[in-house]
Amino acid sequence: MSLPATHPLADGRTSGAPLIRAYRGERLPTPPIWFSGQAGLNPVHEHGVDAAVLYTDVTVALRVAGLVAGDGVLAGSPVRSASDVLALRPLDPGALAPVEDAVARAVAELGPVPLVGSAGAPFTLASFLVEGGASSDHLRARAMMYADPHAWAGLLNWCADVTGAFLRAQVIAGASAAQLSDPAIGSLSRRDFQRRVAPHSKRAFDALRGLDVPRIHVGGGSGDVLDLLPGIGATVVGVDWRLPLDEASERLGRTVPIQGNLDPALLSAPWQTLAAHIDDVLERGVSASAHVVDLGGDLPPGTDPDVLTRIVNRVRGGDPSL
Amino acid sequence: MSLPATHPLADGRTSGAPLIRAYRGERLPTPPIWFSGQAGLNPVHEHGVDAAVLYTDVTVALRVAGLVAGDGVLAGSPVRSASDVLALRPLDPGALAPVEDAVARAVAELGPVPLVGSAGAPFTLASFLVEGGASSDHLRARAMMYADPHAWAGLLNWCADVTGAFLRAQVIAGASAAQLSDPAIGSLSRRDFQRRVAPHSKRAFDALRGLDVPRIHVGGGSGDVLDLLPGIGATVVGVDWRLPLDEASERLGRTVPIQGNLDPALLSAPWQTLAAHIDDVLERGVSASAHVVDLGGDLPPGTDPDVLTRIVNRVRGGDPSL
Repeated sequence: MSLPATHPLADGRTSGAPLIRAYRGERLPTPPIWFSGQAGLNPVHEHGVDAAVLYTDVTVALRVAGLVAGDGVLAGSPVRSASDVLALRPLDPGALAPVEDAVARAVAELGPVPLVGSAGAPFTLASFLVEGGASSDHLRARAMMYADPHAWAGLLNWCADVTGAFLRAQVIAGASAAQLSDPAIGSLSRRDFQRRVAPHSKRAFDALRGLDVPRIHVGGGSGDVLDLLPGIGATVVGVDWRLPLDEASERLGRTVPIQGNLDPALLSAPWQTLAAHIDDVLERGVSASAHVVDLGGDLPPGTDPDVLTRIVNRVRGGDPSL
Repeated sequence: MSLPATHPLADGRTSGAPLIRAYRGERLPTPPIWFSGQAGLNPVHEHGVDAAVLYTDVTVALRVAGLVAGDGVLAGSPVRSASDVLALRPLDPGALAPVEDAVARAVAELGPVPLVGSAGAPFTLASFLVEGGASSDHLRARAMMYADPHAWAGLLNWCADVTGAFLRAQVIAGASAAQLSDPAIGSLSRRDFQRRVAPHSKRAFDALRGLDVPRIHVGGGSGDVLDLLPGIGATVVGVDWRLPLDEASERLGRTVPIQGNLDPALLSAPWQTLAAHIDDVLERGVSASAHVVDLGGDLPPGTDPDVLTRIVNRVRGGDPSL
């Protein structure tokens, strides 16, 4: 594809955007806010958030690779054996063309608002392939990790290459940052993450070599491994709702910009309760080198869009109620 | 019901059992082992484990209360509002008669081997009622916790009373210890556990007042709240597979007996890998005041029973391979 005229790597189109400045470690008077779990350009127009994202389904890289069908279901059999792993074929670069086109179109429409490229992390993708779908305990995936470490490493490398290429394509096409989502990470012990997963997450981020964009790692239940994430190449660390940001900042040595950590469960609470929570998150977020406000988990289906608008307003100081 | 002649509170039938001695804080040359997730008396006969348990489904107290049908599905509508909570009726003590009978029969058959009474913790039960079934993120339950704290407290109290009565009935009927299982606990921040859940878990344990039995708390992803568990009345703390026992012991000030933390995902690994894991768990477990070996999570369906026997043998020093 031909790069759009506004390609950010060439013209710094979004380098002055609040989101990117915060991602680079600059503390702004008002922290930027976006909802990384809400796809499309609508949130930008409707709620005036600081960034957009096109892909929020963590398995979409597997869809690009042809392993997951349009309905989000595994196209073939689960990947369980060394020979299953060997049968995985490298991603056809041509499959990325529609991704590049979609990103380029979105970037052109967004103008100065950054688009964040997003993709599932290798462990989350591998779990989906091994379990044959979503899982809560990732038991089969972790079982394979122990039972056949070589097949596991091969599978994780394959996932890292697919998701790394997917992420790189989005950045080349104009995304201003790259986010790796690893909701399954909380099922791992620190040691297993360190030994058997982290090198592959690093490999995914390494696919962005030469592209000077912020790299965000977002996990679920990742409190015990937060401090390891800069080591795999994350320049920004996402924190879910479980860990207060002041404690997260401490674990990160107060040197790493953080993203989060509004609790999705509070979106349906009375406004006074939610507003107090927002204020608490903002206050604790000051302890980090920089803070980007986001939900610390998935956007619950059926969330009232007006609530998102009120959150944005409150973060920006436009809702003095309470 | 009439208490069986061997009622342990009267005759100390199991007070010399390795499990109970370890639960009381005595370090034994060989740590006791049992599989808290495997119901029935079979494990005792087949694998020679140190204890048995009758109820492993965490929602069985709700079944006794008539809210969950025999197939494990919620009998009525989910509990979502303050009026839903008000409509919950106290447990009919008569409903506990079959429980008492089953426990008494099991205890009589077990002889000197202890039976551990077990029940779901209030938060896990409440989540089941609010979500209308099992859940991975417990989002609706946590939403109710914030949206309507009074209804939430009422619901948790109701759950605490039901599960407390269920646990107490098991102990009165001859169970030698009482275990509260809270697999959902890992979805909570430390602060929310402390403020909105822990008082109710304490209330469940408080139902055992006057009964001098060890009280075990078992959770999933509970690493961040381990040190709070003795404060709610737990005299033994379960540790899942995520946290190494030496670190868990440290968080507990090395004064609390711990139970765990074999990784269920390793049950299907090659024996050498599993054996090395067992040895590692045993070695780290020495850092606690006492250690009871158990799986740090559910027994995976289809687990080879021979593997469980080999684990027991290895813990007892009867498997010198590797």
